[in-house]
Amino acid sequence: MNSEKIILGIDPGTTIMGFGLIKVVKKKMQFIQLNELILTKYDDHYLKLKLIFERTIELIDTHKPDEIAIEAPFFGKNVQSMLKLGRAQGVAMAAGLSRQVPITEYSPKKIKMAITGNGNASKEQVAKMLQNLLELKELPKNLDSTDGLAAAVCHFYNGGKVQAGKSYTGWSAFVKQNEGRIKK
Amino acid sequence: MNSEKIILGIDPGTTIMGFGLIKVVKKKMQFIQLNELILTKYDDHYLKLKLIFERTIELIDTHKPDEIAIEAPFFGKNVQSMLKLGRAQGVAMAAGLSRQVPITEYSPKKIKMAITGNGNASKEQVAKMLQNLLELKELPKNLDSTDGLAAAVCHFYNGGKVQAGKSYTGWSAFVKQNEGRIKK
Repeated sequence: MNSEKIILGIDPGTTIMGFGLIKVVKKKMQFIQLNELILTKYDDHYLKLKLIFERTIELIDTHKPDEIAIEAPFFGKNVQSMLKLGRAQGVAMAAGLSRQVPITEYSPKKIKMAITGNGNASKEQVAKMLQNLLELKELPKNLDSTDGLAAAVCHFYNGGKVQAGKSYTGWSAFVKQNEGRIKK
Repeated sequence: MNSEKIILGIDPGTTIMGFGLIKVVKKKMQFIQLNELILTKYDDHYLKLKLIFERTIELIDTHKPDEIAIEAPFFGKNVQSMLKLGRAQGVAMAAGLSRQVPITEYSPKKIKMAITGNGNASKEQVAKMLQNLLELKELPKNLDSTDGLAAAVCHFYNGGKVQAGKSYTGWSAFVKQNEGRIKK
């Protein structure tokens, strides 16, 4: 059995895409990379999707991750934002699917819980914890870019169990807990 | 100037993906293909997305379309359905983006309007009109599969103008007309 693996974590959004890479060696995490793709400067919706797709393909081809973890919120402001978010997730997933890399998605709450033990932790708390866990010298100015790395670390704590096909359990649980927030 | 072109029309959904191909020769349409990818039999969400991506890539590589037209509703039952729809659209778009084929999206209303002159036309009316316009011998049992072909024909009537980057004008117009239906 190969005891080493690489996990790519992605937080695909239409304003910023955060991504991080960790290597798992003998059940311990090693930090590889933390980066972001800033999309606010582009007006063209298709160009943004193309950049997310191409960057994800490039990350896969360069680092050859064994698994991909995606931060995937189940709730947004409105149907428009969810459609845009779904498209951003879709192109990132297409990149993974086209390279045969298994994908697991985690809700933001689950990621915060896995890293800090508190599902409602602040971005700063999550970032500080990541800094400790991975011995990062410094944190990026824009903490949004740590969300991808957080997804990768959450996937590590989850035992790297690939959940494809059960991805909507998160949503079902959300629906049960948030009946009032769902527009029928 | 090349007076011939091929248009691929897609209606990406998570239960059925309809697609159609037309060839435009000397400003006249010729029917090439009408088909569907039934996804209801698959439970796995990622498998569905993978099948949409792969089929779209296959269609592009086989028929080498010059342009892609996508039917893209701007409104759904709830945020969950919009997220799923966004993902389905995202993977289909990723296929087009990865092959450098320009994509234009049209709302269902715009497609019905272009084909029948009535934005509220029934599925049967649109299908009958497509049958006449393209001299189809028969219509498929499942009329949902004609939606992709309808998008391609709408794109032809629209002069094949590629609208990438202006894709959200449809949504803005929708928001103005449907303030009460948008969850803030």
